[in-house]
This record gives sequence, structure tokens and C-alpha cells, in this order.
Amino acid sequence: MMKDLLAQRVNPDVPSALSGLFPKDDDPRAISFAAGSPNEDLFPVQAMHTAFDTAMINHGAHLFQYQTSQGNADLRDQLARRIGKWGQVQTTRDHVVLTVGGQQALELVAKTLLNPGDEVVVEAPSYVGALAAFDLYAPTYYGVPLQNDGIDLNALEDTLKQHPNIKLLYTVPDYHNPTGITMSVAKRQQLVALANKYDFVILEDSPYRDLGYEHLPLPAVKAFDTEGRVIFVSSMSKILMPGLRTGWMVADGGLLTAILRARQASDLEANNIVHAAIDAYLTANDLDAHVDILKADYQRKCAAMIQSLEDYFPDEATFTRPDGGFFDWVTLPEELDADALLSDTIIPQAHVSYVPSTNFYPDRNVRNGFRLSFTGLAPETIDEGMHRLGDQIKAALHAAKPVV
Amino acid sequence: MMKDLLAQRVNPDVPSALSGLFPKDDDPRAISFAAGSPNEDLFPVQAMHTAFDTAMINHGAHLFQYQTSQGNADLRDQLARRIGKWGQVQTTRDHVVLTVGGQQALELVAKTLLNPGDEVVVEAPSYVGALAAFDLYAPTYYGVPLQNDGIDLNALEDTLKQHPNIKLLYTVPDYHNPTGITMSVAKRQQLVALANKYDFVILEDSPYRDLGYEHLPLPAVKAFDTEGRVIFVSSMSKILMPGLRTGWMVADGGLLTAILRARQASDLEANNIVHAAIDAYLTANDLDAHVDILKADYQRKCAAMIQSLEDYFPDEATFTRPDGGFFDWVTLPEELDADALLSDTIIPQAHVSYVPSTNFYPDRNVRNGFRLSFTGLAPETIDEGMHRLGDQIKAALHAAKPVV
Repeated sequence: MMKDLLAQRVNPDVPSALSGLFPKDDDPRAISFAAGSPNEDLFPVQAMHTAFDTAMINHGAHLFQYQTSQGNADLRDQLARRIGKWGQVQTTRDHVVLTVGGQQALELVAKTLLNPGDEVVVEAPSYVGALAAFDLYAPTYYGVPLQNDGIDLNALEDTLKQHPNIKLLYTVPDYHNPTGITMSVAKRQQLVALANKYDFVILEDSPYRDLGYEHLPLPAVKAFDTEGRVIFVSSMSKILMPGLRTGWMVADGGLLTAILRARQASDLEANNIVHAAIDAYLTANDLDAHVDILKADYQRKCAAMIQSLEDYFPDEATFTRPDGGFFDWVTLPEELDADALLSDTIIPQAHVSYVPSTNFYPDRNVRNGFRLSFTGLAPETIDEGMHRLGDQIKAALHAAKPVV
Repeated sequence: MMKDLLAQRVNPDVPSALSGLFPKDDDPRAISFAAGSPNEDLFPVQAMHTAFDTAMINHGAHLFQYQTSQGNADLRDQLARRIGKWGQVQTTRDHVVLTVGGQQALELVAKTLLNPGDEVVVEAPSYVGALAAFDLYAPTYYGVPLQNDGIDLNALEDTLKQHPNIKLLYTVPDYHNPTGITMSVAKRQQLVALANKYDFVILEDSPYRDLGYEHLPLPAVKAFDTEGRVIFVSSMSKILMPGLRTGWMVADGGLLTAILRARQASDLEANNIVHAAIDAYLTANDLDAHVDILKADYQRKCAAMIQSLEDYFPDEATFTRPDGGFFDWVTLPEELDADALLSDTIIPQAHVSYVPSTNFYPDRNVRNGFRLSFTGLAPETIDEGMHRLGDQIKAALHAAKPVV
């Protein structure tokens, strides 16, 4: 009876794209390459504690009162300057909205733009959290493949010609989730030109942009925006701490107005106490120096992951070689089903987990890949887990091969 | 062009129900009876600062990592025991979800239940934030009038008979927003019986339940729930501090599962740092003793408001006499339009504001009432503002009367 009372968007018969992030395995040997958790040993706990003290002392009681839907003006100012410096986006705090993580920004954009059935382009594969947020608004998806330098623009333009009502394109241009691929500058510029030509909105989701191991951040897609049709989203989760639950977006004009309205109706406002603490942290500390520490750590872990893929995986498996971010993407031979393997043998026998490819495709129809996250694990743990995982993949491949 | 890209739910031609909360008036004499802000002079700032310190010292780095969509288990435990003690709701932390204010809880319930056109009953008048949240999911509304002891159950049953597909009923049973009315215990029990009979979900929104000036809290509607069809929502905003952005709900069974899924897709999780601080505050302090201080303060201010209504308002205006909560409701003669009066004369000439009745009705069709909030203002300020407001109402009434 209760099931009949639920809206179609939460149909319990269709698993959420986010359901794969936390596979259940209580075994003490369990090693998870699934969720993209940052390394908490590097969290600047003492500096952030001091920043909370500073915020509470400086602001007094009013810090704890209702504030505004857009969020703390000083922090918005710092973020506007940061994306100006590192992403070449010329904007001001009046165009910045603070959100509950980047996730809320994605959900608010979907809520603001999408009527049921509206047409959306996503990269294939694409971030599970974005798919879960978009799914709430029941769009029609078109997946466009990725190349080594980002989304395939020829395939995209073919899709746009076939479906002229496409309203929204979602991209993770920097150290893409789940593949680690970065979009070239030329493609960023061409993508905006296509948005202008075919009249759609670009949702640029860039939580990893600061985490290039070897390169400085590229100009944001938003840097090439001439018509206010790119919405830029980023987050403090990957470069500071996810528990702060602070994401942010940059938007313009009528889009900004509409997003703020949807935001107010959704939760009134985010947490000003935390915003003021982040503002105090950014004022008293050098975030870029902290990010340099993260980059060195994650580069070492990424190298351990790549090495273990070379050491333990069969030649038939291919993988990306990211130079930044949190993730690596593995493609198995087509006869292997990464979903079934995970639940049938890999978790029960090897106590290792990943996120299967089905979660990253809107139609859940690509079964022979998976995402690996390496940032939260020590290199020795990565080696151990990947050894176990590689053995399982080899065994599955052997079992799948016809006996000659 | 951009306007065409927006979803219908944020149609810029229809003002949000929340738009009336912050009328613009930069005059130094401005007195706002509009937004329901608590008295920040009574915020336990030092105790909360200590609680943040405790949380950060006790939990260390892991406090700042990703946690769970349901929220801090210790705080959920404390809230489950609190609603057991004061609301006679027998529940456990497994049934509690922590949200970004009560507002997010309302939005999540609407998101979880409502397909476009689904039928919803609201009290008439009803809370603007709930209407704004529900509006995002385009329901069909039925308003049921209030009596002195809560919603008119005969009118409700007539509505249910006429519209057997009604899915959701929204009520603020305790010190109702905007009227201050409290639903009797008998009606709470009968309301649940109707929900069982006509198969709908009750969304019980009770942020003011602890703030009875003369009476202890009544059993929650949820206390009479026999089929897991009542969702109870409350908040720390009115009894502690709104800047904590911490609301909570109690739900059961498939409803709880579906709400958690919608929550994860919306913003992953709320702020565990703040949750841990509230948990530490509740452990180290007596919240009920703090609430007693609030009740004494708000009772004094409510009395000042009622006195000024008697002193300065014409006999043709009627008003409620709340014995708890944040709000009083004024009804003007039908020929007066509280919306037009506010923007045309009351703000420009008297620099006083309220929230006009149109915002509290789903069809925006009742124009001769308004909500007054008194909690954030000193009694002298209430007297001064109400004197100015009363003079404007008298003048408007005089102008509206036919010359004999």
C-alpha cells in the first residue's frame, strides 16, 4: 500500500545510481576502492578547529541566526577570486551560491531546468551522483562517448542535430569522474560554441580541478561562456574536507535567480557557521600549499594503482592513466560482467570492492567496466587489494574462455 | 531564451510563497513582523562554542570525513528519546533522519511522494515554506479550514470523500504557523483514523511544540500512528539556533527507505560536524531549561503583541490569541487587501512589515489577513511598530468605507 504512495522518481524497483558506492562487506580484510573518500590523515584538523573558534568569536550570536539563501558573502568573495585566479572565470560574489556539497548544486540545477522527459546529454560514463540527482527529474538521457581529450564533439554535434530540444549538458572536464580524463582547452571553447549554437545549458562539475599532479588547472569551461549559459560547480570536499558539506556554484542572470528560488524552497540556506569557519581558514592559511600536499600524496597512490594494474591484471583488461584527481577506470573484455563478478565472487572471496560500470551509464547497460578510487588507501593496501582483485579478474577471464 | 530553458516549477511569473518573508525596507525606522526569527540575544553562544570544541577534540579527523545520509547516530538517539518523552512517540534512532533544517524535511517528503498533479490537503492558511516546497512538485491542493482546536475534520472528511486519491495531508498541529492554533488531542487521534481509512500520509510539522507558554507539549499526531503513515518533522531552529541548519524527521518502513534515497541523491548528507556539536551540547546542557527561558521571553512578547492589537487596531480587525510559538494571525474586513496595503502604504509610510495572507494559501486567493511574528523584537519595539501599523489599518478602513 505504502509503495503506491511513492512518487515515480523513487521507484524502489530501480536501484539508485548511488547504490554502488558503499558495497557491504564487514570482513576485517575488506578493502574498498569504491567510494571516493579523501585521505583523512591529511585533513587540516587543527587549523580548521582554530578557524571555527575565530568564526564564533568574531561573529558572536548573529552567526547562529537565519542568514541568506546565497550564503556567507565573505566566503563567496574568496571563492569568486579563487576561480578567477585558477580558472580564468571573471565573476563576483553576487554570482556565487554556496550549497550543501557539490551534490546539492547538481540537484538544484536539475530541479531548476528539467521538466519530465526533458533531454539531457551526459558523458558516457558519467558521475553516479549526477545521474542520481538528474533521475529525480526524469529526463531523457543521451550519452556521448569520451576520448582521451574529453567528450567526443563530433558525436555530440550529431546528437544535437538529431535532438534539437536538448536543454542541458553535464560534464566533469577535469580529472573526470569516473575515468580521470581531462578535457582539452580547445574542446572547452568549442563546447561553449556548440551550446550557443544549439541553445543549451552546460553544467560544469569540477571538484578535482585543483588536483592535477603535474599540471596547473586549465581555464574552466565557464571561462569561455559568453551568454551566461555555463553553470560552474565545485566543492571544498576534495581539496579541504567533505564533512564541511560545502559546495558552490557560479551562475548568471535568470538561471541564477531561478536556482536561488529553488534553493530557498529546498532548504532555505546552507550552514553559515561552517561557511564563516571556511572563510576564516582561507584567510589564515594557504589553501594552495595544502593542495600541494594532497597532490603529492594522491600522485603516489595513483602510481601504486597503475603499477598494480600492470603487475596483477591480465593483458585483456585496459585502464586509464590519470594525471590528477581521485579515480581510475578499468575496461574488461566484453564477456565479463563487473556487476555480477563483484557480488558473486570478488566481495565474498577477495573482500575487495569497486563501483561497477552499470552505475555510471544512464541506461545501466555497460557491464564490463569499473571505477577504482585510490585516494583514501595507503600504497601497500592498494597493492594488496589490487593483487587480490587481479587474481579474481584473471580467474573470471579464464573461466569465461572457451576450452580449446 | 534562458527563460524557456527553466522548468515549470520555477516559473518566474509566479512569485514563490516564500517571497513575502523578507520585504525590502532599508529605512532606519523599519520594524519587521514578517520573518519568524528567534531572539538571538538568548542564543547559548558560549555553550555551543564549547560543544563545537568538544566535538572536534573527541572525534578528530574522522569528524570531517564523509558520513551517512541519515546523520550522526548519537544525535539521532537523543532526538528519538526526546520525542518519546515529550511527544509520546515510541521510536529509535534508526527511524530518525537529520536534515538541513525542517525545510529540507518538508521538501524531501514532497519529492518522495508527489508526482505532478497528485492531491494534497493543507490547512488553510498554511506555512509558506511548506507551500514553496510542495510547489516544486506541482500538486493539486485542497485547503481545509482551521477551527480553534485545529483542522476542521468534518470539512476534511468531505474533501476526502470527494477526492479519494488524496495522498498527503500537511499539518502544523502545535502553535500553528501562521495562526498560533493548537490541534486538540482528540483531533490528533481522529486525524490518524482518517488517514488509515482513506489511505493517505500525514506530514506532521512541529517546530514549535516545545514552546507552549502555559502547557506542556501534547502527544504528537505520530504518537497515534498505527500503520507507519505519519512522518514527524521538527527542528533545532526555534528551540536552539536556526544557523545550525538542523531539522529532523521520524519515518517508518518503505517511506523511510524512499526518503533516504531521495536525500542521498539531493545532497548526500547534512553536516556531521554540526550534528556532533549539537550532540555534545545536549549532553552537557539542559535543553529544557533553555527552552523555559525562551518560553518566558516569547510569552512576554506575545502579550505585548496582543495588548497592542487591542490598543491600536480597529474593532473590525480580529486576531488569534496564541498560547505558544512565534506567530499571531490578523483578519481584516474583506474589503481590505493586505498585500496591496503593505506595498502601497504600510512599508513606504509606516516602515512596518508583515507577511500578507496570500502567501499562506495555495491559490493565493485570500487577501484580507496577515501573519505577525513577535519573537525577535523587544516589547517596546512591538508596541511602536504595532501603533504605526494600527494607524495605517484604521486609515485604510476609513478610506474603504463609503461616505454616508
